[in-house]
Amino acid sequence: MDVSVSPFASVPNPAPMPEVACVSETESGINDLLPRIESALESACRFDPGCPDRLAAAIRYALLAPGKRLRPALVLMGAEACGGPTGLSSSAMAGAVAVEMIHAYSLVHDDLPAMDDDDLRRGRPTLHRQFDESTAILAGDAMLAQAFSHLASHVSDPAMAVEAVNVLSRAAGPSQLVGGQFDDLAAESDGHERSDVASLEHLESIHRRKTGALISASIDLGAVLSGGTADQRAILTDYARDVGLAFQIVDDLLDFTASFESLGKRSGKDASRGKLTYPGLLGLDPAREKAEQLVESAKEKVSVFDSAGSRLRWLAGYVLERTH
Amino acid sequence: MDVSVSPFASVPNPAPMPEVACVSETESGINDLLPRIESALESACRFDPGCPDRLAAAIRYALLAPGKRLRPALVLMGAEACGGPTGLSSSAMAGAVAVEMIHAYSLVHDDLPAMDDDDLRRGRPTLHRQFDESTAILAGDAMLAQAFSHLASHVSDPAMAVEAVNVLSRAAGPSQLVGGQFDDLAAESDGHERSDVASLEHLESIHRRKTGALISASIDLGAVLSGGTADQRAILTDYARDVGLAFQIVDDLLDFTASFESLGKRSGKDASRGKLTYPGLLGLDPAREKAEQLVESAKEKVSVFDSAGSRLRWLAGYVLERTH
Repeated sequence: MDVSVSPFASVPNPAPMPEVACVSETESGINDLLPRIESALESACRFDPGCPDRLAAAIRYALLAPGKRLRPALVLMGAEACGGPTGLSSSAMAGAVAVEMIHAYSLVHDDLPAMDDDDLRRGRPTLHRQFDESTAILAGDAMLAQAFSHLASHVSDPAMAVEAVNVLSRAAGPSQLVGGQFDDLAAESDGHERSDVASLEHLESIHRRKTGALISASIDLGAVLSGGTADQRAILTDYARDVGLAFQIVDDLLDFTASFESLGKRSGKDASRGKLTYPGLLGLDPAREKAEQLVESAKEKVSVFDSAGSRLRWLAGYVLERTH
Repeated sequence: MDVSVSPFASVPNPAPMPEVACVSETESGINDLLPRIESALESACRFDPGCPDRLAAAIRYALLAPGKRLRPALVLMGAEACGGPTGLSSSAMAGAVAVEMIHAYSLVHDDLPAMDDDDLRRGRPTLHRQFDESTAILAGDAMLAQAFSHLASHVSDPAMAVEAVNVLSRAAGPSQLVGGQFDDLAAESDGHERSDVASLEHLESIHRRKTGALISASIDLGAVLSGGTADQRAILTDYARDVGLAFQIVDDLLDFTASFESLGKRSGKDASRGKLTYPGLLGLDPAREKAEQLVESAKEKVSVFDSAGSRLRWLAGYVLERTH
């Protein structure tokens, strides 16, 4: 139930994008978005004098770590679908930075000894291993607060800014991201004893909150920050739900088969610790079929955006590429 | 450097307010504000279905704990000084709830084993002792996110809401609350070796960020959410800086002299662990004189608000009462 495996080119060492028929790489992939996102994240790591140097270094270590930038890219793709700007100083980019801050904070806190107790994150020491535990707690807290500060100070339209804060804070709150992580930890410790709870419904509820909510919020933020209509927001949210779930299923499938070397984390760890997984509940082939159905459904939904939705269709397809 | 000692009536067992000459208790104290604040906090503890019951219970344990409600009261007092409404459904009350969520989260995380490692908070088990460590981390995270969700959904004027998010998120961020806590922990571990760092300047810098920033933000939120002018905001911020520092000095003085029984925490603990304190640096009498000067300065500043500032003048005086 970890989403640390990248479907995208990592930064700063981008891997080649897969070939997708009929749509050029420039239009469909996200390679051209990544330098802008990195630049915006770098700019967001300049703190006022009151920020201790070591705390600033810890935040940079977490936020600027090589990553797939899935969520910020989704913000920009949502804005693009609604016809809005995605430049470095756009409101959508402010949303992209904010959502990556929330994502980075959640990884830092999830890795803590009292939580998932992970030593490695994408092959690098986790923040509390590289620095120390109190620094990791505080750096996470700082990024969580900073996300909202960034939105409030970088989005010029007040109504858009408030709605963006609303969308992002709900996705990060007790009924979504935090609630999902809470139940995920509970399922891990109780997984072997409570077979009733280890149901597909419970698994999907955890994913929807822990991973899906922030992915949905990302694409919705793009729509909100580019003046998208209620109809556009609803379509994009449906798309995100399908792709987010497909992404998680593929992640579970990879976790069953991939090696430590290629993923930078302990293979099969989630399963061995009693975590709920799709292949564990459905079997390998049915899990893959479910992912394929979700991706087709997602592609169909965003066909209404025509060429402005080409990146979104590419992304849905790319999620599946990882299983091959 | 803990602000757990209450200068106010605790809820639900209010102690009698001290007598203050020339101003009636109703006008000057905050007793009449407290039931409204408690009611608003209670209402803010209703979560969407995705919130796990145990997480909701932990948030309630922290947020609804008997407390002085200094910060929410300051929000309402700031609004009152600027002539704005302070009722249960007012924008100022939304700010009051949000700031108490930030305060409660910061106490929960500060108490964690990797931080101050406290077992008791106002005589009750700390959250990680009453529940467990992962629940405490997640409940803190949830309250931090929820504070901004509450502002975004309960303040009807978008421009006011954005400025409130701006003020609160900066106060809670890496250069203020989190940075202050970071340096406070660092000073604690290095206190005995680094006499140069244990200077008055460093001590005030820590207080200004760890405690003062949120107190200033509280009163500023009240002004922002009631349409206060830039001049009014500046006066109130100056007032808050003086009172916040006086409050901290008095807290240090009490920590030197009070007993475990009366305060619900280990007496002299901060000093014994190498924490920087005002009486430790200045001596008892000069520390008390400094607090008195600050309070006089604060009272003078808010005289411009006439009767709308009577609670603020009362509060400044009450901070000193605690030393007698």
